[in-house]
Amino acid sequence: MNLLLLLPEDIIGPSRARIAGRRLQHVISVHQAGPGDILSVGMVNGRMGTGRITDLDGAVMEMDVVLDRDPPEKLPLTVILALPRPKVLRRMLSSLAVLGARRIVLVNSARVEKSYWQTPFLGEDAVRRQLLLGLEQARDTAFPEVLIRKLFRPFVEDELPDLSRDTIRLAAHPPATAACPRAVRGPVTLAVGPEGGFIPFEIELLRVCGFEPVSLGARILNVETAVPSLIARLF
Amino acid sequence: MNLLLLLPEDIIGPSRARIAGRRLQHVISVHQAGPGDILSVGMVNGRMGTGRITDLDGAVMEMDVVLDRDPPEKLPLTVILALPRPKVLRRMLSSLAVLGARRIVLVNSARVEKSYWQTPFLGEDAVRRQLLLGLEQARDTAFPEVLIRKLFRPFVEDELPDLSRDTIRLAAHPPATAACPRAVRGPVTLAVGPEGGFIPFEIELLRVCGFEPVSLGARILNVETAVPSLIARLF
Repeated sequence: MNLLLLLPEDIIGPSRARIAGRRLQHVISVHQAGPGDILSVGMVNGRMGTGRITDLDGAVMEMDVVLDRDPPEKLPLTVILALPRPKVLRRMLSSLAVLGARRIVLVNSARVEKSYWQTPFLGEDAVRRQLLLGLEQARDTAFPEVLIRKLFRPFVEDELPDLSRDTIRLAAHPPATAACPRAVRGPVTLAVGPEGGFIPFEIELLRVCGFEPVSLGARILNVETAVPSLIARLF
Repeated sequence: MNLLLLLPEDIIGPSRARIAGRRLQHVISVHQAGPGDILSVGMVNGRMGTGRITDLDGAVMEMDVVLDRDPPEKLPLTVILALPRPKVLRRMLSSLAVLGARRIVLVNSARVEKSYWQTPFLGEDAVRRQLLLGLEQARDTAFPEVLIRKLFRPFVEDELPDLSRDTIRLAAHPPATAACPRAVRGPVTLAVGPEGGFIPFEIELLRVCGFEPVSLGARILNVETAVPSLIARLF
């Protein structure tokens, strides 16, 4: 946790915050902080700054808070991600928050196992928790938007044209001959398939919607290495 | 598993292989392959090609094998990685094999918890297994070299100068002002610190050894996102 994220209910007065629970335990056990120490803090979806601990016992901590700067800019990036298996989903949500994606769309795809849609990790609170862990890691306050779309074709045909308007549209596709571009200027919509990749019909639907299939080379990356690699090349 | 890796003991005759165990179960349950089907195969640390299944029951499979091409080139990259916690270590070994690093050095660092060195995942077989999973994913046959160095300073002072000779030497360091370079030409030695980063003394030792501290921007990436991001930028 490189940033302590404050929720509206933590604010107990002008420039005063009170923290309990998981975040306090982390401050005590990992940061080993005490009264007088200064922590990096930020308001959820707001500004960042510092918090000076004024009171701390095992159950509650109070801080004087100064929020004097903006969080880092989000990347102008929407990632469309074929739903991965639950363990990987959790890590990917955190990773995408760490990396600074502005919007995440979880979609179905022919090679997504149907059982993956049953996972409790798709619940609103579970998703938010993983994003929060990512924001705390990255030192960011702004939650990415998350959309869940269980039908691939209606999403791509009806919604994606507007969602990706005026962006560079790329579909990660290991067999593609075009290389993923480097250091682009402007917003990107990036589609990433499931293990085994998008099927040809899905790639064709994406192509009709203006997506160019691109590859990172001869190696077939798993989603956990592919997504950071693609983002690092693009931005 | 995008490539079935063959071990020397699988070879039962000229261009003939016999497989059992985990790999066979994967072929049956995930690939749902049967006699006549063709799989991507490769010899460990050797060439790649195809295997045509000739016989298959629940316990054993035999194939006609043709090995007619080289594996993808390894990246000219040594990654020096402060030992992460065991769960992350396992994933990072696989990821580094997926990404094509030629050599991995696991080192101690002031912010590495001592207990991490006790993990069974540092055992030779456990390390090899994680690398194998990465090679199967990436479609590569060549194991990266793995070195384990429990003392940071003697490693950096006595061994690293030779190990990193004639390479671009970079230390990932979030507070650095220099940005990680893009698309370099030539071999790289890349040092990546633990959660919380290298301490100033360690950065200074690395600097004396010719390492330049570089950053990926305002966000603080965790090792799982930092390593693929750094590699994607560099190569």
